Amino acid sequence: MAAEIVNPRSDAGAEGVEPFDPAFALHRGGKMAIQATVPVRDKDDLSLAYTPGVAKVCSAIAEQPELVNDYTWKSNVVAVVTDGTAVLGLGDIGPEASLPVMEGKAILFKQFGGVDAVPIALATTSVDEIVDTVVRLAPSFGGVNLEDISAPRCFEIEDRLKEALDIPVFHDDQHGTAVVTLAALRNAAKLTNRTLGDLRAVISGAGAAGVAIAKFLLEAGIGDVQVADRKGVVSSDREDLTPVKRELAELTNKAGLSGSLETALAGADVFIGVSGGTVPEPAVASMAENSFVFAMANPNPEVHPDIAHKYAAVVATGRSDYPNQINNVLAFPGIFAGALQVRASQITEGMKIAAADALAEVVGDDLSAEYVIPSPFDERVAPAVTAAVAAAARAEGVARA
Amino acid sequence: MAAEIVNPRSDAGAEGVEPFDPAFALHRGGKMAIQATVPVRDKDDLSLAYTPGVAKVCSAIAEQPELVNDYTWKSNVVAVVTDGTAVLGLGDIGPEASLPVMEGKAILFKQFGGVDAVPIALATTSVDEIVDTVVRLAPSFGGVNLEDISAPRCFEIEDRLKEALDIPVFHDDQHGTAVVTLAALRNAAKLTNRTLGDLRAVISGAGAAGVAIAKFLLEAGIGDVQVADRKGVVSSDREDLTPVKRELAELTNKAGLSGSLETALAGADVFIGVSGGTVPEPAVASMAENSFVFAMANPNPEVHPDIAHKYAAVVATGRSDYPNQINNVLAFPGIFAGALQVRASQITEGMKIAAADALAEVVGDDLSAEYVIPSPFDERVAPAVTAAVAAAARAEGVARA
Repeated sequence: MAAEIVNPRSDAGAEGVEPFDPAFALHRGGKMAIQATVPVRDKDDLSLAYTPGVAKVCSAIAEQPELVNDYTWKSNVVAVVTDGTAVLGLGDIGPEASLPVMEGKAILFKQFGGVDAVPIALATTSVDEIVDTVVRLAPSFGGVNLEDISAPRCFEIEDRLKEALDIPVFHDDQHGTAVVTLAALRNAAKLTNRTLGDLRAVISGAGAAGVAIAKFLLEAGIGDVQVADRKGVVSSDREDLTPVKRELAELTNKAGLSGSLETALAGADVFIGVSGGTVPEPAVASMAENSFVFAMANPNPEVHPDIAHKYAAVVATGRSDYPNQINNVLAFPGIFAGALQVRASQITEGMKIAAADALAEVVGDDLSAEYVIPSPFDERVAPAVTAAVAAAARAEGVARA
Repeated sequence: MAAEIVNPRSDAGAEGVEPFDPAFALHRGGKMAIQATVPVRDKDDLSLAYTPGVAKVCSAIAEQPELVNDYTWKSNVVAVVTDGTAVLGLGDIGPEASLPVMEGKAILFKQFGGVDAVPIALATTSVDEIVDTVVRLAPSFGGVNLEDISAPRCFEIEDRLKEALDIPVFHDDQHGTAVVTLAALRNAAKLTNRTLGDLRAVISGAGAAGVAIAKFLLEAGIGDVQVADRKGVVSSDREDLTPVKRELAELTNKAGLSGSLETALAGADVFIGVSGGTVPEPAVASMAENSFVFAMANPNPEVHPDIAHKYAAVVATGRSDYPNQINNVLAFPGIFAGALQVRASQITEGMKIAAADALAEVVGDDLSAEYVIPSPFDERVAPAVTAAVAAAARAEGVARA
């Protein structure tokens, strides 16, 4: 079966055969290229863009280091860094096999945010080595987007890089997902005449996305939140918790619940699935009235939308073929574009909340149960997020331009 | 004075002011960008270029790692790696200040070779750390062009990376210069009815370029070569030699000369300047009849062309405003394009000699004292070098496609 999916013509026996699958056809030769933005037609051009003219620009930067942002592409280019350990739902497939995703990310950065991005898939899974490597790469980049790095390593890597660098470092699997989730949740609450503080949410999954969503919703003022991993609700009475989950147990679960995900769902207002797996229908039925089901696993949502609609007021998924797609591409291009525009030294909680609010506001008066979050192709999204993030960076004192 | 050169309008007192210098104007915002080569117009496009379609491509690469070359940009993208320690004639100006040169290099790769290239300026000058970092970056790149790394560190870094990696690693300051020099020398010899074996050359400068040119000319069969550093001819009777120069003393100087550069030039057929400094006119006058003076220091050649022409049969410089410009851009784009085309595991001596020969042959029957090397803008150059390098890679058994 695997061979059929991978290469429908592998039975032809020839190497390098073009499979019939349109995804393979599209990927042949890769999805991106470098483009010169200045002419190199003749020796006059060459003497400005390269030697001897370039020497003056180099000397100027050597004297005034911040000029690197004016006279190179640094201030508009992001490294999309992975170690290939948590790629899509495929898991640890290594750096080379992760490259198609990183290239995809890079072209989305360009398409939606006007941000240049370079795939950097590393041949190491050591936390220390990843941190050291990215610190050494930093002079060439205006920001670092961490991608598809497995939990809990991703938390330490991001924390250490944020500490070490004065450019934005952002693990999109955590914060991009959290920002879009908050935007959808704000609009769902508005639709049902509630505020975030009125809601109790249950998150299925304590990986990168689950942990980040929990913390971010608390930051934004949610009433209560429980996070469940495979062993049930992350609660302080458990003795099997990793340091990250122990911290989570302290921050979350005001209600002091313990036991299974299903137990926690009884009476809950919000289900947020970032785990895969399936939630049984009776557990969905046991949620509070006017509940929201955000079942974001791809391609198989934790609750099928047809089931969810029987009980929930608002249903969202990670899929493009249902309404209300929670898609990170709504957030990361504008977040980086805004941060880079003002040369922010970091991406703060306030900047992420501003991004979520701007995203929610794009929906405006068209708000409905089928439309709590804009389409990724809504052209108002990236400019709105960019402007909000840049303004928040200024307000929070992390802007440098 | 420095301030005037750096920023003619710095007296205006405003930050970020656009200097009047055309080199600064051209560099504003940088010289390069990322371009998507596939469309992302709607959700169908997105579902092929990104999730869920991309997952099939990732899985295929995880199963057959060599497919990364077919389905990503890896096989056409080169990392232009520096630590900023030997940038142009400016010396150790650090990674940020080197970026304009690395971007320039990147756009020349694209313009002349169709090769994508990414500037990677590292925040470390440690040999071990540079080697470790580039090894970790390697999954994302099809080749590594080392640039502007000071000697003798550049030799060890290149040697260790060639040993560690199965993609081409090429320090252009060494080998690019050597390839173009050999091409010019072959044609100069042909013009004066001699072969390389008839010639004795004296190289001024025992840095990256000098060492590489000496070794490469020996590889190509030159009669004899002396290399002079600031203390004179590198000869085995000297006790102040670094390990690299000791090796050079063993390989070069069949004639067993010692003493000053001027002493060595008496009766020599070729002067190759890669040092800066000035060679006194009497020393040029003391060279053999039909001599060649390749005075490549920029912007001030070691021998001014007007002086050189009084004594030499062929004069070449590094400058674009005199005939016979020895310019690396004649070599590196085609060398990498050829190596990448056949997915060569390395760039061998044979591939470099093939590049030099192809470059020399472009001149063909138009050969004259003023035309021993083609113009960088001769459109025949890159295709000729590319084809020759690819063929040589096949012949030497290092091609993988």
